[in-house]
Amino acid sequence: MLRGIPSTMGDDYPLNISSFLTHAATVFPDTEIVHRSIDGAWHRTDYAQMRRRVAQLAHAFDELGIGAGTMAGVLDWNQLRHFELYFAVPSVGATMLQMNLRLAPADLVYVVEHSQAEWVFVDESLLPIAEQLAQKEEVRSTVKGWVVMTDKPSSEISTSLENVHFYEDLIADRPEEYDWQFVEETTACYAGYTTGTTGRPKGIYYSNRSMYLHTLGIMNALKMGYTDTVMPVTPMFHVVSWGIPQAAVAAGARVVLPGRFTADNIGDVAEALISEGVTVANGAPSLFAPILEYIKALPEAPDLSRARLVSGATEPPLSLMKGFSDLTGAQIIHAYGASETSPVVSANWQIKPDLGELSEAERWDLKRAQGLPVAGVEMKIADPTGVELPRDGTSVGEVFLRGPWITTSYHQLADNDERFHDGWWRSGDVGVITPAGYLKLTDRLKDVIKSGGEWISSIDMENGILDHPNVLEAAVIGVPDEKYQERPVAYVVPRDGQDVTREDIAEVLGERFAKWQLPDQVIIVEELPRTSVGKLDKKLLRANWSE
Amino acid sequence: MLRGIPSTMGDDYPLNISSFLTHAATVFPDTEIVHRSIDGAWHRTDYAQMRRRVAQLAHAFDELGIGAGTMAGVLDWNQLRHFELYFAVPSVGATMLQMNLRLAPADLVYVVEHSQAEWVFVDESLLPIAEQLAQKEEVRSTVKGWVVMTDKPSSEISTSLENVHFYEDLIADRPEEYDWQFVEETTACYAGYTTGTTGRPKGIYYSNRSMYLHTLGIMNALKMGYTDTVMPVTPMFHVVSWGIPQAAVAAGARVVLPGRFTADNIGDVAEALISEGVTVANGAPSLFAPILEYIKALPEAPDLSRARLVSGATEPPLSLMKGFSDLTGAQIIHAYGASETSPVVSANWQIKPDLGELSEAERWDLKRAQGLPVAGVEMKIADPTGVELPRDGTSVGEVFLRGPWITTSYHQLADNDERFHDGWWRSGDVGVITPAGYLKLTDRLKDVIKSGGEWISSIDMENGILDHPNVLEAAVIGVPDEKYQERPVAYVVPRDGQDVTREDIAEVLGERFAKWQLPDQVIIVEELPRTSVGKLDKKLLRANWSE
Repeated sequence: MLRGIPSTMGDDYPLNISSFLTHAATVFPDTEIVHRSIDGAWHRTDYAQMRRRVAQLAHAFDELGIGAGTMAGVLDWNQLRHFELYFAVPSVGATMLQMNLRLAPADLVYVVEHSQAEWVFVDESLLPIAEQLAQKEEVRSTVKGWVVMTDKPSSEISTSLENVHFYEDLIADRPEEYDWQFVEETTACYAGYTTGTTGRPKGIYYSNRSMYLHTLGIMNALKMGYTDTVMPVTPMFHVVSWGIPQAAVAAGARVVLPGRFTADNIGDVAEALISEGVTVANGAPSLFAPILEYIKALPEAPDLSRARLVSGATEPPLSLMKGFSDLTGAQIIHAYGASETSPVVSANWQIKPDLGELSEAERWDLKRAQGLPVAGVEMKIADPTGVELPRDGTSVGEVFLRGPWITTSYHQLADNDERFHDGWWRSGDVGVITPAGYLKLTDRLKDVIKSGGEWISSIDMENGILDHPNVLEAAVIGVPDEKYQERPVAYVVPRDGQDVTREDIAEVLGERFAKWQLPDQVIIVEELPRTSVGKLDKKLLRANWSE
Repeated sequence: MLRGIPSTMGDDYPLNISSFLTHAATVFPDTEIVHRSIDGAWHRTDYAQMRRRVAQLAHAFDELGIGAGTMAGVLDWNQLRHFELYFAVPSVGATMLQMNLRLAPADLVYVVEHSQAEWVFVDESLLPIAEQLAQKEEVRSTVKGWVVMTDKPSSEISTSLENVHFYEDLIADRPEEYDWQFVEETTACYAGYTTGTTGRPKGIYYSNRSMYLHTLGIMNALKMGYTDTVMPVTPMFHVVSWGIPQAAVAAGARVVLPGRFTADNIGDVAEALISEGVTVANGAPSLFAPILEYIKALPEAPDLSRARLVSGATEPPLSLMKGFSDLTGAQIIHAYGASETSPVVSANWQIKPDLGELSEAERWDLKRAQGLPVAGVEMKIADPTGVELPRDGTSVGEVFLRGPWITTSYHQLADNDERFHDGWWRSGDVGVITPAGYLKLTDRLKDVIKSGGEWISSIDMENGILDHPNVLEAAVIGVPDEKYQERPVAYVVPRDGQDVTREDIAEVLGERFAKWQLPDQVIIVEELPRTSVGKLDKKLLRANWSE
């Protein structure tokens, strides 16, 4: 690394995530935080009041021994105290462990033990999970005590937990000012565990620096400001709700916390979105779809034309994007990332102005892409050896990422070299980058066929085969090949009574695929195996395959 | 500083200002840079092409020995090559010295010597300044060579400079790729010298880290994005044009570089602003006022309703703000800062939505204020001992600042403790912070009267005295006092034939000032001394005062 003439600037002023709450409390003291408690009631507070409670909490932390080096877990929905802990825990140099309440119990035990969590903050509604955890020896060996979060008097809560404190009792009558200290910026403010399909959850420890820069990055990518009203819908125990809560605070935006909700009461979330004038919310298509259905059933469609609905997880369906746009004016913004990337690394905010004339269909198609990299992160697509591929819209490669908010290792996990390459994190996602800079994913790496040092997209090939009028269903897998490493094999279900040959398939694929990419075998079957949730079971196809 | 659990993130990935050009060239390769050359002609290029030229320049730097540790000065207008050097110089770990071509020659010599500049890049139109500098022994002792920037063939340039290179010749036929290295983030990317009213210019060396964070900060404060067209009007040799060029690049915005202009051809700037659809521009009221006059004279007023005109230096006059708004829809955004603060620390973007009902007059009055602190910097007002004063809109104090883009020292200048206090930089500006968080300046510190540990605003008092119908002009100065340190004395010019007494003044000031603040003496004079440019000469009043 090059080192030149030293600066005169405050370079040792550390980037602390809690500084954004200080900023909000001094510059936007009266800005509202609207929040829903576990009983469904809505309440209102503001940044000045929240900051006073966070100061009281810091005094309580001092008493409990929560400080620099402490791991403190949180089991909660998107509620006010969870929001307070987002800033209170890092403000004293401690690390907040996100406890995903939907993890398998054994995984949650593993996460608590692996992270060496000393305290767990738990909402009263989640006491059963905490009590189950507390019975495990691994948990008892690290957790010193529990803090129950409830609006009820502590006398009304009965629990089998030991060394129990109550959040509101802990902070009551404490001073509303605290003598804050700076935290060294590489100290972890949050810890999250990613759940792969194989192996144990892997720990990603976000630094104050990485979260601070991610916060500024997504504020920019989404143009968030103090005229916005922001609702974190994605669970706050899941990749820190994509950093949306922190960005809202840094922007001085109004915040709406929807509390606990499920598919059954998604109407409450939709109502709040409308009545509070939410302009930024995050979620997956599976969340936004029922919200759109709810809105469709209203006697009058609301005007949500200022709203940017940040959608992750999967490519948003056209019907969802168009539905929101036509009915309410709200814009779905597809964003991309992973636990390892804090998570946002690209977003599809507005269509670039210099793309020339695009048809309406082309515009919608472009809006479905993962979008443009956020300023601050480097993104490239690369071949299996890590060599960068051209940004030509056709070269397919794995997405590689590096930058200040991309992980460079997993916490205390030695055997993970395959996920890193020369300082870059390998996403396992596969796609193209267009000449205009848009990332468009085509596959997960495990769905890609590696043949002769090149990649063939099984999803593209399946879609191509489906274009043949005689084909009802299709699945393409890669099978081992001595010479080419893998070769594609297609399983095809013909429409009733129709005939389909390898030549038919070769012909229909001929326009989009090179000759060497065409499947060597086309196997006609009556049906394709599916998993319990109805997805194509390619794993089974691969396992059952024999030449 | 607290230190806790280490993170797994890329915390050693350095913040490099040149990374924003890499980002723009890969994500916004075709985005236009429109620029005006010294002959007045307009040209167009794009980020991909600019990046290739910067790579060529880096190869040339290798040959010249410009690298980590080199100070390289630039004498240029707002032209393309200046813009390229903004990124090329820091990209190799070197530091770009901003040479303010309006500095007194002796000061410019001092700046070159003090910064130990080894190379100077000079536009052909500014060769006379360079040649004058080159005659000085102090300059010859440090500058090794000169690089002339011109569109003409080098054979057409005649100069007395020694060891002269030509920018275009230097980069011609060089490879368009370069093996970039990271630069340690506290390395200075730019150096600027501030010109106080007393003493030598003082060096402020901006780090890659500070400029990077400042860039993200102002992108957020101004909501800059890739749908914007940005024109840096403030000279690029003056506090890096307030970081607007860097923010434009980070945002992937179109850029319009107006080249050389003066009050005489400000119409060219106005025309470009209109015809290129500029949405963000920066300048002082003294620049925006003639642009408004030009627009007023057009047969049809242009629609500039997307434009944010960032105005610094002094409080923008109401007529200027209203004039732009009424005629074109453009919004003047008052921003505040200094060389020592990179410079932007506050901006008055949009009126906060939660202020309740404001009259139109109140809204305009609020828009005149310096605005809200940018997320990332801490701002407070403090008494002379550094104790923070309440944000109540009435407590008057000096503005103190700290944060990642605030200077903590001057380059190799020992005797500057009075400008720093406990990690904060003292601005010398005096004002209030309202309960809603707005900074409103009232005075420069030297115009404030320090009496009994409190401050009295001379400007407020003068305005109060002018409310008396018999008063034509007034000046208030602080005079030494054994007991109270200073006491106010008012000089008053009555309207023809009118009578004004101390009691009259006390009465008219009575509503706004406490009794102890009232001037001890009111001195009736026939006229007030003025400087050569017509400003009240308070220095002379203070010098001539005797009890």
